[in-house]
Amino acid sequence: MALLADLPRNEDGIATALGVLRQTFGPRVETGQTLREQHGHTTTWLRNQPPDAVIFPQATEEVQEIVRVCATHKVPIIPFGTGTSLEGHVNAPAGGISLDFSQMGAILAVHPQDMDVVIQPGVTRKTLNTHLRDTGLFFPVDPGADASLGGMAATNASGTCAVRYGTMKDNVLALKAVLPSGEIVQTAARARKTSAGYDLTRLMVGSEGTLGIITELTLKLQGIPEATSAATCSFPSVEAACNAVIASFQYGLPVARIELLDALQVKACNAYSKLSLPEAPLLLLEFHGTPAAVTEQAEVFGGIAAEHGGDGFTFTTREEERRQLWQARHDAYWAALQLRPGAQGISTDVCVPISRLADCVTGAQEKLAELGFTAPIVGHVGDGNFHTLLLIDMENPDEIARAEGYVGWLNDLAISMDGTCTGEHGIGQGKARYLERELGAGAMDMMAAIKQGIDPFNIFNPGKMMLPNG
Amino acid sequence: MALLADLPRNEDGIATALGVLRQTFGPRVETGQTLREQHGHTTTWLRNQPPDAVIFPQATEEVQEIVRVCATHKVPIIPFGTGTSLEGHVNAPAGGISLDFSQMGAILAVHPQDMDVVIQPGVTRKTLNTHLRDTGLFFPVDPGADASLGGMAATNASGTCAVRYGTMKDNVLALKAVLPSGEIVQTAARARKTSAGYDLTRLMVGSEGTLGIITELTLKLQGIPEATSAATCSFPSVEAACNAVIASFQYGLPVARIELLDALQVKACNAYSKLSLPEAPLLLLEFHGTPAAVTEQAEVFGGIAAEHGGDGFTFTTREEERRQLWQARHDAYWAALQLRPGAQGISTDVCVPISRLADCVTGAQEKLAELGFTAPIVGHVGDGNFHTLLLIDMENPDEIARAEGYVGWLNDLAISMDGTCTGEHGIGQGKARYLERELGAGAMDMMAAIKQGIDPFNIFNPGKMMLPNG
Repeated sequence: MALLADLPRNEDGIATALGVLRQTFGPRVETGQTLREQHGHTTTWLRNQPPDAVIFPQATEEVQEIVRVCATHKVPIIPFGTGTSLEGHVNAPAGGISLDFSQMGAILAVHPQDMDVVIQPGVTRKTLNTHLRDTGLFFPVDPGADASLGGMAATNASGTCAVRYGTMKDNVLALKAVLPSGEIVQTAARARKTSAGYDLTRLMVGSEGTLGIITELTLKLQGIPEATSAATCSFPSVEAACNAVIASFQYGLPVARIELLDALQVKACNAYSKLSLPEAPLLLLEFHGTPAAVTEQAEVFGGIAAEHGGDGFTFTTREEERRQLWQARHDAYWAALQLRPGAQGISTDVCVPISRLADCVTGAQEKLAELGFTAPIVGHVGDGNFHTLLLIDMENPDEIARAEGYVGWLNDLAISMDGTCTGEHGIGQGKARYLERELGAGAMDMMAAIKQGIDPFNIFNPGKMMLPNG
Repeated sequence: MALLADLPRNEDGIATALGVLRQTFGPRVETGQTLREQHGHTTTWLRNQPPDAVIFPQATEEVQEIVRVCATHKVPIIPFGTGTSLEGHVNAPAGGISLDFSQMGAILAVHPQDMDVVIQPGVTRKTLNTHLRDTGLFFPVDPGADASLGGMAATNASGTCAVRYGTMKDNVLALKAVLPSGEIVQTAARARKTSAGYDLTRLMVGSEGTLGIITELTLKLQGIPEATSAATCSFPSVEAACNAVIASFQYGLPVARIELLDALQVKACNAYSKLSLPEAPLLLLEFHGTPAAVTEQAEVFGGIAAEHGGDGFTFTTREEERRQLWQARHDAYWAALQLRPGAQGISTDVCVPISRLADCVTGAQEKLAELGFTAPIVGHVGDGNFHTLLLIDMENPDEIARAEGYVGWLNDLAISMDGTCTGEHGIGQGKARYLERELGAGAMDMMAAIKQGIDPFNIFNPGKMMLPNG
């Protein structure tokens, strides 16, 4: 928690900006303590650093107005979606204004022929998919939480479907954002493909609110698959399961999801969900396509699994049975928490080349055993990304310190394997010190040059991604 | 051609830098006129603007050394792959040094389990795929020309397979580049997925050598499909063909390629390739997957085509027959040139949302008829991207001027349809004046801030992408 020292506050600027903003927004400049604390970080051990005020903008022009005032007085602005970030992205270490986008939740245009949709950033993924249901289309990025799509774009979220449909980088066609200068930028046209200029869309996606405040998104959609099959199979070791995954990709099998549960996670699920799965590494798969294709694909995987020592291969195309087969995965988080009632779950997020995944997971398990942690592992193994869920007594500073030590050790292990300290949760505050170890000085200098060029006074989400002096 | 005025030259700097570089590189600093002209633009009506010298670097450190010298003396550097750019990217309007990467053609590492490869930028796509053949893997981006992969990355190339496998943006995992500061940047680790910092990889891809000189690439590979099917079908109109494409996507059909030839192009192919296709818009498709899947997919498309007035639907999974079915597409360029022997083909490159594609193609055809041009159309219709091949007498300045007028008219039409002036050829010199019309002042200012932050003295490929005063 040493990382989370407050940054210097521009007290005069904050006071003046709040005064000016009150003239325009009146009581919509909210400063109640509970509300402010809800808009700081609340989901892990990172300390809550509330903003000085929260405003709920209703239009791009309002965001522009707020940015202009804050830029004039050099006051930080922190965009806020639903607050599900795990790395402190919404904290206000230097104070400032939190912009809560929950009142910018309009779906502006659905283009069924183009299979895209234009939305405001406060729309959540579940709301979007409910809205789209009758069109036969859906938005495929699923990070678990019902996060806002603006927040998902800002942090480059992904999740279980990324192996087939990609991450937010692959699914944001264009966006509108307000820059620190107050200018509005439209990053791209609505065409599927473009070579027109620097890729501002993807620069903005994953920039964690440090370059621009997203006020509109154009997202690619997918056709709801005609048929879906699900399969599960147990394996004698993590290595055997990973080898089956590698063989599936080399075969060209178009998996829609491929998730790993380690033996401890399976044990937790058996207890929580009244299942009787072998207490061994488990792969869960999903295939999307035509009825014939998804059956064939599941069967092909069954053959590959058998060659790698797989046991108890099961597959189905029926919806009710699919849900049962995937029960363990759906309940994984709640099942894990029951391994240590009262503990908080803290998630790691490394991602490595898939050839190193078994080594990385196995190394993590050994380290966890050595440190005496109860921490099941769930992985988006098709991407080489996995999460250790550390079950921590948040009243025990020594335990938190040891857990932080483990997280750092795991990040360094992944980096040594040509991997990353974050596959999908982002850098925020929690991972800032690992970014340079991962990418080196050249990348840090290039990022700093971009940040300096676009936000010279560091008013957009300061203290995130790059260390304060980085 | 008014665009191509020379830019101010830093004569003293160029002379000094050449002297310093000769001390290190000796006769490898080549200044022969023929060689220099070969390293200026040679493929369209854009005027040749040769560099002052050409160097063939052999290592990242040599590039770094050259960049340091050129930065010290404020001399332009223009990277050169195979010179197949269509928009003047390799021209030297302010003089300077062309860096020819043909001697950096090493394949550094193949990782079959991770399905990626690490290469130097001078490797061409055909060389790479020949090298990979025994691994069962291939690199799927196919722009037609046997371009260097460094050049393809710099311009965000794509081509016929983009509808399934994406563009260079989607297939470059990471890259190494030398910045104008002389620093080396590694943009990302080798993990499949990352949320670690700004997306420097995708910022560099498509930046046309204006931000960094690429010296290494890590590329995603695909498994060579077990089976491939091909299909063709004629349609009563461009609109009917486009509607069949839209319906196929809404169905979720995973086409690997889907190309449109307009009636004039089909006529040209009939004459050139001794075919007897109906002189009507033709769609050609390819499917990649398991034997059962590619047969099923082709048949599903046959049904969709029939619902949209398709005629003469044919499909096959046999290699020899596939080649015959696709003969018209493979020969399209050469067949088109025979419509007007002696003329040069000049290609447009707009890309629009697919719902507007039929309107855009039909509008283009009407305009071409009005202007009296012979100009067949070929389209990567799955992406909404199509090329008009204008057949131009390059000795006739009036004709060139009218053709430039058409290109501008078409770019503006596409922009008015929420499309782009370039789907895959890039901005270079030829499209610089359309970029702001397409993206607006906010995006131009953001691009300028990035360029200024990274290349404050504008030594990397000056006069490209942004207008000199942009």
